[in-house]
Amino acid sequence: MFDDPIYLLAMMGTAVFALSGAMAAARKKLDLFGFIIVALAPAVGGGTVRDLLLDADYVFWVKDLNYVYVVAGVAVLSFFQVHRLDGKKYALLMWADAFGLALFTIMGTQVAMTYDIHPVMVVIMGMITGTFGGMLRDIVCNEVPLLLQKEIYALAAIVGSCAYLILIDMGIPQEGSMLISVTATFVVRGLAILFHWSLPPYKGGQT
Amino acid sequence: MFDDPIYLLAMMGTAVFALSGAMAAARKKLDLFGFIIVALAPAVGGGTVRDLLLDADYVFWVKDLNYVYVVAGVAVLSFFQVHRLDGKKYALLMWADAFGLALFTIMGTQVAMTYDIHPVMVVIMGMITGTFGGMLRDIVCNEVPLLLQKEIYALAAIVGSCAYLILIDMGIPQEGSMLISVTATFVVRGLAILFHWSLPPYKGGQT
Amino acid sequence: MFDDPIYLLAMMGTAVFALSGAMAAARKKLDLFGFIIVALAPAVGGGTVRDLLLDADYVFWVKDLNYVYVVAGVAVLSFFQVHRLDGKKYALLMWADAFGLALFTIMGTQVAMTYDIHPVMVVIMGMITGTFGGMLRDIVCNEVPLLLQKEIYALAAIVGSCAYLILIDMGIPQEGSMLISVTATFVVRGLAILFHWSLPPYKGGQT
Repeated sequence: MFDDPIYLLAMMGTAVFALSGAMAAARKKLDLFGFIIVALAPAVGGGTVRDLLLDADYVFWVKDLNYVYVVAGVAVLSFFQVHRLDGKKYALLMWADAFGLALFTIMGTQVAMTYDIHPVMVVIMGMITGTFGGMLRDIVCNEVPLLLQKEIYALAAIVGSCAYLILIDMGIPQEGSMLISVTATFVVRGLAILFHWSLPPYKGGQT
Repeated sequence: MFDDPIYLLAMMGTAVFALSGAMAAARKKLDLFGFIIVALAPAVGGGTVRDLLLDADYVFWVKDLNYVYVVAGVAVLSFFQVHRLDGKKYALLMWADAFGLALFTIMGTQVAMTYDIHPVMVVIMGMITGTFGGMLRDIVCNEVPLLLQKEIYALAAIVGSCAYLILIDMGIPQEGSMLISVTATFVVRGLAILFHWSLPPYKGGQT
Repeated sequence: MFDDPIYLLAMMGTAVFALSGAMAAARKKLDLFGFIIVALAPAVGGGTVRDLLLDADYVFWVKDLNYVYVVAGVAVLSFFQVHRLDGKKYALLMWADAFGLALFTIMGTQVAMTYDIHPVMVVIMGMITGTFGGMLRDIVCNEVPLLLQKEIYALAAIVGSCAYLILIDMGIPQEGSMLISVTATFVVRGLAILFHWSLPPYKGGQT
């Protein structure tokens, strides 16, 4: 199982998203269990929503405890060691989150392709897998979801998911398509972080 | 499909609820993707919760992209044009929302009747379809749900859903039962808006 | 059905968790329907999340209206009578909640054992059944979940759920295993309430 590079990437994505949850837990000064629960939300939330919407036979992490172990391990490590990152934490979080977004979007796209649904819905499911975990994290912490506020985020997921579908359709092998589309998602999001790219917010009057 | 008046009504209900989400997004000054995501919550949220609770084979909008297109269309239009409604926005929102509530409650009741569940549970599922989307919209926007605060709202859904069950049981044809019970829901909610009818809030001491 | 002591305990657990929701509704000065909806969240929320994650054929309360009747009854009674408890309300809530936590955790563990999942996942499902309802209650009321803040809570559920698995594995009959592990959960949580036991919160710098 751990020989499988795609599986290893899934675990890395889980770890970086769990880290984003642990950092949110640190901001709220939670205890160790709070760290674990808030780390679970971004790490497994997006894929859980996808599996529920597609009525999967089981939600992916219920049958594979490695996801839970990775999340718990990251949460415990963060609880004791995350203060060491003071000063660089926010920048690190942004890049880890961008990496998780890219991985999860393309993996969610792959899962959705195994269902008999329209390609547009496949892209939506990829986007949900990549972005809804972070939204759940923010809802649990009682904050306005970053997904709704920040620089280009959902758009990066949509670009990457579309790229994957097009590459597969062109006959590019799965590994190559994955590498290119994960990179595309990461680059779009990374450029948005570096240059503060954002879509214009609504500028109308009060409602 | 678009010949079917019931389907057209479902799309209208989706559009007015999406508009309520877009107006919430405007209040939060979100970008275009924020508009789409916050519009999705009320437009498909209630039916999604119903389908998940009933363990439907698939959540309704996953197999029918028209719901997503209507929501995206309303969100995009609202992003660019909703400022034109300044001044009348709140009143318009209330009436659009009342119309969506009435349509979705009766449609949710119809869907629930196809399952082998008790009539009381059918009414509860109708009420959930009509009201939970708005609650999800408010949770995503980090506000106390209007469902929990405002004038008679869930009660209108319950009245309409019960009316539909009784009319069908009396042998009234589906179209007639639907027309009457949608109207009943809309009238109860409309009267509550016009005359500020509300149930008395809890008046006890601090807890 | 009401001859079954386990079923009676499930109804008692439902009632005490519904009471915790009604008290949250009282704090927010909601109306009668608000009381019912906020009482539903803790009373059926944890088991609902468990049933969705395990892809149960149906969510438990959809086929058994008694849960809904108990919640509605407690909500109505609370709406009219909860002010009588002023002064002792908070203490009462804590103990009722501890009792509900203990019952629901062990019942959730029993349900999860009927699925083909790893024992660690059984414990996680028991913990989710016992604790996620209260988290949903707090999310609906737009508050930071108590689960994330308070004294030892999730840990009590994990201790009780593990105890149940070990006792069953040792060949202790179901009734005895249940009695001991419900008591263990209640005692751990009760001691945490009495002596303000809590796990240390994160003490690092700002993130």
